[in-house]
Amino acid sequence: MNPLNERLQAVRWEEDKLYLLDQRVLPHTYTHISLETASQVAIAIKDMVVRGAPAIGITAAYGVVLAAREAYQKSPEQWQTIISADMQTLAQARPTAVNLVWALERMQKCFSHISGNPESELLSEAKAIHQEDIDANYTMGNFGSSLLPKNCRILTHCNAGALATGGYGTALGVVRSGFSDNKITQVYADETRPWLQGTRLTAWELLEDHIPVTLVTESAAATLMKEKMVDWVIVGSDRIAANGDVANKIGTYHLAVLARYHGVKVMVAAPLSTVDFSIATGSEIKVEEREAHEILTSNGQRIAPLDAQAWNPVFDVTPAELVDAIVTEKGIIEQPTTEKLQQWR
Amino acid sequence: MNPLNERLQAVRWEEDKLYLLDQRVLPHTYTHISLETASQVAIAIKDMVVRGAPAIGITAAYGVVLAAREAYQKSPEQWQTIISADMQTLAQARPTAVNLVWALERMQKCFSHISGNPESELLSEAKAIHQEDIDANYTMGNFGSSLLPKNCRILTHCNAGALATGGYGTALGVVRSGFSDNKITQVYADETRPWLQGTRLTAWELLEDHIPVTLVTESAAATLMKEKMVDWVIVGSDRIAANGDVANKIGTYHLAVLARYHGVKVMVAAPLSTVDFSIATGSEIKVEEREAHEILTSNGQRIAPLDAQAWNPVFDVTPAELVDAIVTEKGIIEQPTTEKLQQWR
Repeated sequence: MNPLNERLQAVRWEEDKLYLLDQRVLPHTYTHISLETASQVAIAIKDMVVRGAPAIGITAAYGVVLAAREAYQKSPEQWQTIISADMQTLAQARPTAVNLVWALERMQKCFSHISGNPESELLSEAKAIHQEDIDANYTMGNFGSSLLPKNCRILTHCNAGALATGGYGTALGVVRSGFSDNKITQVYADETRPWLQGTRLTAWELLEDHIPVTLVTESAAATLMKEKMVDWVIVGSDRIAANGDVANKIGTYHLAVLARYHGVKVMVAAPLSTVDFSIATGSEIKVEEREAHEILTSNGQRIAPLDAQAWNPVFDVTPAELVDAIVTEKGIIEQPTTEKLQQWR
Repeated sequence: MNPLNERLQAVRWEEDKLYLLDQRVLPHTYTHISLETASQVAIAIKDMVVRGAPAIGITAAYGVVLAAREAYQKSPEQWQTIISADMQTLAQARPTAVNLVWALERMQKCFSHISGNPESELLSEAKAIHQEDIDANYTMGNFGSSLLPKNCRILTHCNAGALATGGYGTALGVVRSGFSDNKITQVYADETRPWLQGTRLTAWELLEDHIPVTLVTESAAATLMKEKMVDWVIVGSDRIAANGDVANKIGTYHLAVLARYHGVKVMVAAPLSTVDFSIATGSEIKVEEREAHEILTSNGQRIAPLDAQAWNPVFDVTPAELVDAIVTEKGIIEQPTTEKLQQWR
């Protein structure tokens, strides 16, 4: 089993504080931000200090610990009432990732069993969520790797790695496991505009683990496939509908259409907490639009003309019929359908 | 007829010098570079002071005037021999655009008729090439617009506009004509990584002409099409093979595949000089790869980790079967084939 790389841990709880690796300034600045209140945590999620659906869920779980501490200090009797404002703030920090709401609901389930100061019990639950995510990633890594042929060439999108999870990765967990299984000969990462998660995060974390990676523009993916330079597209997910439709970073649907056209396979690796059985299909998934300035500026400098507009949806929805395999810690489902996904319910 | 916008002229000959609008620093810096030798012209083409296949051809034609002046100063008898080194340098400045070689060959055909100082005769020929390109753009604009339905929504890629041509545009010539014909209700321009021609150039030149434009990432194009927000993709071309295969900026093939999948139409607008009847299919087109740093850096700052690699092909080839219409100054060919293109030979 590949050890976790300590430098790649996005979320850490130490000495009663939450520490987040600041992903906005990677790879050239490696620095952590310490957080002591739930509202700080919500802002950090919104501002993308931490990103990636599973990492957001874990961060929010620790955020509940901080919220409970604050609420209990205010009123040992009324903390469960007082905390609801913070729970709401955390839930609204990012709209697309279901893991965020899932983690908050799981933390809230503990509330009724707690008497006295809730901090240590909630911290145990947050740590359990964190550890289970890591364990799930390793399991998915093995399942995913089992699908890959020898001498496999991978294209990945955005960052679904250690930085986006408890510490091993979903899509990049499969890449890590496939690489140590000697099945992967080449990894391509696309830039992932506008935030450049591929360039800044995926390239960095794979190189930190000595896995060679080559960056390409998103628009070159079609040519990569046409030239038969890629066998599998492997991505993570922010929310999977009950029928297997997949919401993920904008550009995932584009890769899935191109992959189908070129006979390249598509794997989605995500913890079971990403599957939202409450929604039948992807058409019910509310997709986040972020501010135009992410497209209009670069490094804080305006690149577009001053009066230009931009449309900046940051997720898209890939229909299940374009997905060859969904991999969770429960196993592999090929050609996903509502009926097949029911086995994980 | 829409007047030419003087501010958008990429190439100008004035007072015995060639002036190029420096497209590397647009839209925030508007400045021209003056050139007095053919080797300066070759460097300017290589460094992308000027870009766009037709504009490169026109620039090279004026470059021959400068080369001839220099050669004639060195030796009024031997200038036609001396000039060949400069002709070679100009031809090699960019590999993909056929217009460059086409313009040089056309200039060279004048050599045999010339006695005495060649400058004025060659200048007339270069100006003729320039004016014919503008005329061709207007004609294409009308042909292209005739294909558009009412309330048409356009997606364009890279910059095939005034800045890329003699002064009106190929793809954006069609957009200009379609807009003044009241057929176009929305123009989307994709960023066009890594050089951001869409963000920096297309958005700027359309806004200069008061044509509203919305920028999107390349990876959002698939979602635009899925949501039925686009009717036509309109692009230019750097080289068209005899069978209608189209070489153009990387990302054109990606849009063509996505367009076919979603039932969106694809139009390629290019002057006849772009059609290279000497090559049967696109597989014979040598595609330029540029340096990795265009992907690894932004505004001169490194964005990728220091040891990251990148693959940076800057053109791709779209098979004719994915093209709904090729528009030149000679007319419209729908569903292009070798047989149909022969009528333009």
